[in-house]
Amino acid sequence: MPHLEGRQSILAALRARQRRFEVILIRHGSHAEGIDEVIALASEMGVPIRHVDGAELQSLAHGASHGGILAICSAKPRTSATELLELIRKLSEPALLLLLEGVDDARNLGFTLRSAEALGVHAVLIKKHLWDFDETEVARPASGAYERLPLVQIDDVAPLKQLQQAGMQLIGCLANVRQTIYDADFTRPTILAIGGEKRGLSGAVRSICDSFVTIPSKSAAASLSLSHAAAIVMGEAMRQRRAVS
Amino acid sequence: MPHLEGRQSILAALRARQRRFEVILIRHGSHAEGIDEVIALASEMGVPIRHVDGAELQSLAHGASHGGILAICSAKPRTSATELLELIRKLSEPALLLLLEGVDDARNLGFTLRSAEALGVHAVLIKKHLWDFDETEVARPASGAYERLPLVQIDDVAPLKQLQQAGMQLIGCLANVRQTIYDADFTRPTILAIGGEKRGLSGAVRSICDSFVTIPSKSAAASLSLSHAAAIVMGEAMRQRRAVS
Repeated sequence: MPHLEGRQSILAALRARQRRFEVILIRHGSHAEGIDEVIALASEMGVPIRHVDGAELQSLAHGASHGGILAICSAKPRTSATELLELIRKLSEPALLLLLEGVDDARNLGFTLRSAEALGVHAVLIKKHLWDFDETEVARPASGAYERLPLVQIDDVAPLKQLQQAGMQLIGCLANVRQTIYDADFTRPTILAIGGEKRGLSGAVRSICDSFVTIPSKSAAASLSLSHAAAIVMGEAMRQRRAVS
Repeated sequence: MPHLEGRQSILAALRARQRRFEVILIRHGSHAEGIDEVIALASEMGVPIRHVDGAELQSLAHGASHGGILAICSAKPRTSATELLELIRKLSEPALLLLLEGVDDARNLGFTLRSAEALGVHAVLIKKHLWDFDETEVARPASGAYERLPLVQIDDVAPLKQLQQAGMQLIGCLANVRQTIYDADFTRPTILAIGGEKRGLSGAVRSICDSFVTIPSKSAAASLSLSHAAAIVMGEAMRQRRAVS
């Protein structure tokens, strides 16, 4: 059964109301800052709380950063392609989605989700294999964004084609193409596709992109990491959208 | 004695010609890709190479990612405030410097250096305590930028005042100030000051900033991590500078 560790993660998940909580375990005598807030929200939502000894809690935890609190709950639900289309229809602004391929570790994925939420991305599309990461390892650097952001599992390009038919442009980020991120129009409904550092975007995704963009950078330098490249592209989308709103 | 591990780090350091190399150790029978390039450059530079057995190499290495090659060399030299002023005077474009305070781990520092180099930063100013990180841990995610970028140790604000007297503006990044990064003028000679996630910029640096900027983000979201905030601010500086060049 999946579980969440630490006050921040549990509070974000309770507030997001997407998971089913079985029980919240709190170490006897724990007076960690903010734990009252978890207890109040849990009792409001009818989630049972059990006080346990430190050894029982430790036997369930992955690491040592739980701070005396752990929740047993369902996994974060994946948003289906149908739900995503519905979500986009209800937005009061042009949709901005992020498609990630080939992220190399859980921590980079978590940081990218955190940036995506802060920069106004409405949902993140994630290739199948990225769901194999340890959820706890993704959630920690995401700082609550993992709970709040709709995440869609993409097994093939069919949902991307559906989104394109619904009026969205699919823009692939690649090194060394002519069009820069500053020349592209991100104020339209947009899916930003970003690939991993080793292989970049897959051929399947490239073959259906409407256009490609590059982040201009110094030629003698190493390339940007995936999560930092993503932050810069999403930041540029936010800049353009603020300028027209 | 400091050392470097792995072909990429050693090659970047040899090319940057900032360290003094004592010897390069290569595991007997190692035919790692690109090792010939190291051997050629080392012999051109008069650096001795010694073939050793795996156990000897492993006893010197921190981790397991050395790939059979390790260099014993001097530490990366720190650029002095005087050298920095000289460097700035010689630039053919307005200087762009990054000042970092309160970075919480070596990996985040490394990634920030990598972004800084890619986005056109000429030198990075680092507070004293950040030099305590394990150099190998900083250098790996920096992907060569650690070797190439001039790094200046800052013990107090005196060098910042010197830079201001030389015509540079010191812009502090803070949450929730009125001016956004899009309203600021980064085309002038600029020092971007970015603080850690926990405490932000120090009072000493804040007290001498010429102005403050914020990255606009969604209010319900968690704040951006330091390295991602830095990438977005430096990306905006690059955008503005490209637009006027």
